[in-house]
Amino acid sequence: MVQRPIGIFDSGIGGLTVLKEAMRLLPEERFVYLGDTARVPYGTKSPATVIGYAEQAAGFLVSRGVKLLVVACNTASAVALPHLAACFQLPVVGVIEPGARQAVKASSRGRIGVVGTEGTVRSMAYNKAILRANPLARVVSAACPLFVPLAEEGWAGHRVARITAEEYLEPLCREGIDTLVLGCTHYPLLKPVLSELLGTETVLVDSAAATAVAVRDLLRERNLSCRSGRGGVHFHVTDLPDRFCRVGSAFLGAELTGVEQVELGGGVQSSAVGDERLMVEAGGVV
Amino acid sequence: MVQRPIGIFDSGIGGLTVLKEAMRLLPEERFVYLGDTARVPYGTKSPATVIGYAEQAAGFLVSRGVKLLVVACNTASAVALPHLAACFQLPVVGVIEPGARQAVKASSRGRIGVVGTEGTVRSMAYNKAILRANPLARVVSAACPLFVPLAEEGWAGHRVARITAEEYLEPLCREGIDTLVLGCTHYPLLKPVLSELLGTETVLVDSAAATAVAVRDLLRERNLSCRSGRGGVHFHVTDLPDRFCRVGSAFLGAELTGVEQVELGGGVQSSAVGDERLMVEAGGVV
Repeated sequence: MVQRPIGIFDSGIGGLTVLKEAMRLLPEERFVYLGDTARVPYGTKSPATVIGYAEQAAGFLVSRGVKLLVVACNTASAVALPHLAACFQLPVVGVIEPGARQAVKASSRGRIGVVGTEGTVRSMAYNKAILRANPLARVVSAACPLFVPLAEEGWAGHRVARITAEEYLEPLCREGIDTLVLGCTHYPLLKPVLSELLGTETVLVDSAAATAVAVRDLLRERNLSCRSGRGGVHFHVTDLPDRFCRVGSAFLGAELTGVEQVELGGGVQSSAVGDERLMVEAGGVV
Repeated sequence: MVQRPIGIFDSGIGGLTVLKEAMRLLPEERFVYLGDTARVPYGTKSPATVIGYAEQAAGFLVSRGVKLLVVACNTASAVALPHLAACFQLPVVGVIEPGARQAVKASSRGRIGVVGTEGTVRSMAYNKAILRANPLARVVSAACPLFVPLAEEGWAGHRVARITAEEYLEPLCREGIDTLVLGCTHYPLLKPVLSELLGTETVLVDSAAATAVAVRDLLRERNLSCRSGRGGVHFHVTDLPDRFCRVGSAFLGAELTGVEQVELGGGVQSSAVGDERLMVEAGGVV
C-alpha cells in the first residue's frame, strides 16, 4: 500500500504548483497528476457541474490505485470535497483547509483577505475555514476572474496585471488586511505584482506549500508514507498535451514531457495521443 | 419543413450576437439556441476536442428537428465545419466564410487583419477564406486570448482593455491594415476600444450580420424560409443558466429568461434545472 502513488488533480495546469511543493517535500513518493484540460476552467462553472467533473477526475485517479487524493484546485476543493470524501474510500486532501490555517497562523491582526475564482469566492469556503481556525478573524474576499487568463497568457508581470490587481484589491486594501490568501493555484505567478501593490507588511499565503505539509502529515498519521522510493510523476490530461506542456512548465518550474491524454466520463475522444507513455523520475522534472 | 426552427450553437454566450442579428433579419423564424457553457471556452482547446464537442452540440440541435444549423462560434467554424457538414443531413452555416467575404468587400487596399482565439488563428481558416475571395489580399492575424475574459468581466471599455488591445494589435497596425475582422463572437463588445485605437479609416468587420444574411440567402435558395411565423427563441445551456443569463444579456441586448439546462454526451448532470421550459416570443427578447 505504501508503494502506491499519490493522486493529484486540477482543472488544468494550476495544480502543478501544488505538485511541485509535494515533490519537493516528499521526494520518495510517486505521483499521478490529472489536469482536466478539455473542460478547464472550473472557476466560472456552477457547483453542480464542478462536483460532477471532480467526481470523474477522482474516479480516474482511484482507478489508477492511488493511496491518497489531493484536490489541487481551489474551486473543486471549495465545492466538491465532502462529496469526494463520501464517494471514495481513501484520504482526501484539499487546498482550502491548509491555506486557511496557514493564513490564521501568519496573520498579525486577524484581518485576512482572500482572492480566488468566482466559484471559490461564492462558496465562502475560505471564509468558513478561516473562522473555524480563528473565530475573531475578519475575512474579506474578492473574485479576480482575469488573474487566471493573465497568468496563462504569460502576462503575470505585465502592467495590465498591475492595473487589474489594483482594481480587484482596492476593497481589500481599504479594509486594512494584513494577510492575503492566494485562493487559486494560478495566483502564485502574480506574487511579484501583488507584493509590490500590498507592500512588505502584508503576508501572501499560497496554499501549495501548506497543502504539501498536510499531505505529509496525513500519510504519516495513516502509516502510508513511502520511505524508500525513487519518486516520479506520471502526467495525464483530457485535451491534447501541447498547450499543457507549453504553459504548464512555468507552473511546475521544469519542462513537462511524457504527458498522456485520457478520456473522462464526458470525453469525446477515444485515442490516447501525444508523447509515449513515460514515467518521469523525480530527478528529471524538479 | 419551413415551420421548423433554425438551430444555433456556440461554446457559450458569444453566439448570442449572431442570434440577435438573425432574429432582426428573420423575425418570422423560430430559433433554438445552445450554449455549451459547461465546457466553455473552445478557443484554447485542441481541434480534435472542439470537433467532438461541436458534433455533440450539433447532434442535440438536430434531435430538436432544426432545418438549418448555424455554427455561431468562430473556433468551431474554423475547425469543425467540414466534419459537421459530413455528419448531418442539413444545411450548415459557419461564421468564417460570411465574415471573410464581407472583409474582402469592405477592404480598400486588400490589407486585412484578423483577430480571434488561439484556435481560430492557428487554424488559418480566415486567411484561407479571405484569399479564396481575393487572392491578392494580404492577411495578418493575431490571437487575442484576453479579449474573451475582458468582455465577460464587463471590462470591454476599461483602460485594461485599451492597453491589451494596443499590445495585441501593434503588429497588425505596423502592417498598415485597412480592415479588421473581429474573428470571435465576443469581440463586437470591444468595438469602441478598437475603433478608437485603429482610427476611423480602418473598417471593423463583425461576422454576426454577414452570417445572418448568409442564413437568409441559404433558406431562400433551399425553399426553407418561413414567411408567416411569429418567431421566437428557445435557449439551452449545458451548465446552470444563472451566469449565462447574467452575462449574456449584454450580448443579446435584451434580458435572457426561460433558459433550459440540457446534457450533451459528456454531461455529468441528468436533471434539467433553472427556469421552467419557456418559448420566448421574438417580441419578448428583441
